[in-house]
Amino acid sequence: MEWEGKLPPKLLEEYVLKILRKDDPRLLVGPSIGEDAAIIDFGEKVLVIHSDPITGAVQGIGWYAVHIACNDIATRGAKPRWLLPVLLLPVGQISLLKEIVKDIAKAAEEVGAVVVGGHTEFTPGLNRPIISMTAIGEVDKNRYVTTSMCRPGDLIILTKGVAIEGTSIIANELEEYLKKRLPEYLIERAKKFTREISVVKDALTAVSVGGVHAMHDPTEGGVAGGIQELAMASKLGVVAYEEKMIIREETREILSLVGADPLKTISSGSLLIVAVPSKAPEIVKALKREGVQATIIGEILDDPRKRYIVRKDGRRLDLHQHIKDDLWEALKKYEVLK
Amino acid sequence: MEWEGKLPPKLLEEYVLKILRKDDPRLLVGPSIGEDAAIIDFGEKVLVIHSDPITGAVQGIGWYAVHIACNDIATRGAKPRWLLPVLLLPVGQISLLKEIVKDIAKAAEEVGAVVVGGHTEFTPGLNRPIISMTAIGEVDKNRYVTTSMCRPGDLIILTKGVAIEGTSIIANELEEYLKKRLPEYLIERAKKFTREISVVKDALTAVSVGGVHAMHDPTEGGVAGGIQELAMASKLGVVAYEEKMIIREETREILSLVGADPLKTISSGSLLIVAVPSKAPEIVKALKREGVQATIIGEILDDPRKRYIVRKDGRRLDLHQHIKDDLWEALKKYEVLK
Repeated sequence: MEWEGKLPPKLLEEYVLKILRKDDPRLLVGPSIGEDAAIIDFGEKVLVIHSDPITGAVQGIGWYAVHIACNDIATRGAKPRWLLPVLLLPVGQISLLKEIVKDIAKAAEEVGAVVVGGHTEFTPGLNRPIISMTAIGEVDKNRYVTTSMCRPGDLIILTKGVAIEGTSIIANELEEYLKKRLPEYLIERAKKFTREISVVKDALTAVSVGGVHAMHDPTEGGVAGGIQELAMASKLGVVAYEEKMIIREETREILSLVGADPLKTISSGSLLIVAVPSKAPEIVKALKREGVQATIIGEILDDPRKRYIVRKDGRRLDLHQHIKDDLWEALKKYEVLK
Repeated sequence: MEWEGKLPPKLLEEYVLKILRKDDPRLLVGPSIGEDAAIIDFGEKVLVIHSDPITGAVQGIGWYAVHIACNDIATRGAKPRWLLPVLLLPVGQISLLKEIVKDIAKAAEEVGAVVVGGHTEFTPGLNRPIISMTAIGEVDKNRYVTTSMCRPGDLIILTKGVAIEGTSIIANELEEYLKKRLPEYLIERAKKFTREISVVKDALTAVSVGGVHAMHDPTEGGVAGGIQELAMASKLGVVAYEEKMIIREETREILSLVGADPLKTISSGSLLIVAVPSKAPEIVKALKREGVQATIIGEILDDPRKRYIVRKDGRRLDLHQHIKDDLWEALKKYEVLK
C-alpha cells in the first residue's frame, strides 16, 4: 500500500487506535476519527491539547503551523494559550530558523498564545523544514464542545465562505495559468485568502454568545466533508443549502476554471458552528461585529439516513459517501499545464 | 554554519529564545537553557509538558520516544500521564507503523501513561521514521522540582551508574570490533543497558520520600555535563567524587577500549537527585527497595567558583568549561575501524 499524507480513517483505526489503551477516567475526549484535540479533566476546567505536523512545502511555515494547531483548540471552545513547536530543519539553514521563529512569534501574538517549550534541531537528510506543533488551551468544563455534540434541530452556521484555503493554494500554485484567463486583481486577492486561515476569533466569538453545541473546521473534503463529519460524529442527519453559503467571487471564478467543486475543496479558515436555533442569529450578528462574515446554511436532522446538501440547481449532494477533495486533481492538472 | 543535531545553547538563545515573548503569569518555568519541560500553573496542581523528537535511526523508536519524553516529565517530580505522538513515516512503510504503535503502547504501559492524541502520516522524502513525542504530567504545586532549585549543602545522588546509554550505543555500534577484544557476555549485557533508559521510577521514588530540591537526567555530556548543568542553573558550586559513582564493569571495559571517559559519555537512564542531607540516605534506601541502585556522589556548594569532580587519581575535572560528549569520537573511530 502506497499512502502519502495523513493516514485514512480505516487504517488509523486498524493500525493505531485499536492497539492503544484509552482507559483513563480523566480523558473526556481521546484519540478517535474526526476528533483531533484531546480533552482532559482538570476539575472545573478542562485541558484541550492537540499536536499537528506541517510536513509540506509551505510559505511562512511557522505562522501556518501555529494557526493550524490553534484552530483545533478553538473549535473545542477553548482559547489557545500555550505552544510547543518542535522544529526540524535542513542542516545549515540557520537563517531559515530565524525566519520561522519570527513567524511563530507573530502568529502566537495574533492568537494570544505563548511558546512554553519545544525543540530545535538541524536534522540530517531533510530537504525542507518540518514543524510538529503542540497547542494547549483550557475552558470551563461545562463549556467545551466537540464535533459529536450536535442535536436535532440545531442550526449550522458557516463563517467566511467555502474553499478559503483551497482558493488560495490554487491561486498561488496555478498563478501563471490563471493570469492568462482571469483579471489579475482577482488572483492577487485570492492568493491572500491564506491570511484568513485562523478560526480562533470565529470560534471564541461564537461560544461567547452561548448556545453552541458543536464546532468543526472543515479541512480536507471541504465544507461538504466538514458537514458530513459533524453528522457522522453525532450520528444524526443533516441538510445544508449551497445557496445560503458565502461563495466569494474569487473562489467561484478560480475553482470553476480548474474544475474544482467549491464545496469539496479544502477549506481551512472557515468554521462550522452548530447552535440552538434561538441563538444562531445572535451568533451571526456577533461574528459580523467582529468583522467575520457568516450565514446560517442548514440544520441538524434527527434521521441519520438524511444527510445531503441541496445544490443551487436543486440536485442533492449525498453526504453518505466518502468525499474526495478536489484540490489534488486541480493541482495535477497544473503539472500537465506547466 | 553547519550544525547537526540539537541547537547549541548560544544559538538557541540568539535565534529562538530572544525572539519569543514569555510574559504569561501562569508559566512557572518556560523555555530556557537546561530546563526542558515547561511548568504551567493550574491552581493546586501544575501541568508539566515537554515535546521531544527522535530523528536518528533508533531500534524500537516508538518505545524509546515515549521513555525519553517521559523522563523529562518525571525529573520535574511529576508522573507522566498523557502522550501525543506525531508519527512521520517513509511512504509505504505500513508494517513499520504497526511495530511503532505497539512499541509506543508497551512503553506507555510501562510508565502508566495513555495516548490521548497525536497524528500519523506517511511523509514523502523521509528515509526513516521521525517521531515527535509530547508528554504531559501533573504534580502538586508545592512539590515540583527543576534543575535550578539546588541549595548549598544538598547532597547529590546518582542512580544506576554512569554512561548507561553510551555504553549500550557503543556496544551495539562497535559490536564486531569489541567482540574480538572483550568477552561476548559482557558485550551482550551492555547492549541491553538501553532497556534501563527510563528514570520515571527513580524520580517518582525519590520525590515520594521527600526532601528533593532538584533533579536532572544527564544526557549529552554525560554525568559530568549533568552535574555542571545543575550547578549552572542553580548558580552554585558543586563537588562530586568519581569513586562514589557506580561504574559498571561493562561500562569500564568497553569505554576504556574506545577511549571514552565514562563521566563524559551520554548517560540517559541515570538520574541526578539533589536532596537535603537528612533525607538523602533514606532516598537511596527507597531506591534500592525498588531495585534501583544509587549512591551519594557529592554535594552542592555555596561558592559558584568551585565546580569540579575529584577523579579516582585525585585530579580535578573542572566543570566550568564546556563538556564535550565522548560518544561521537568513539563512533567516528568505528567508522575508521569498519
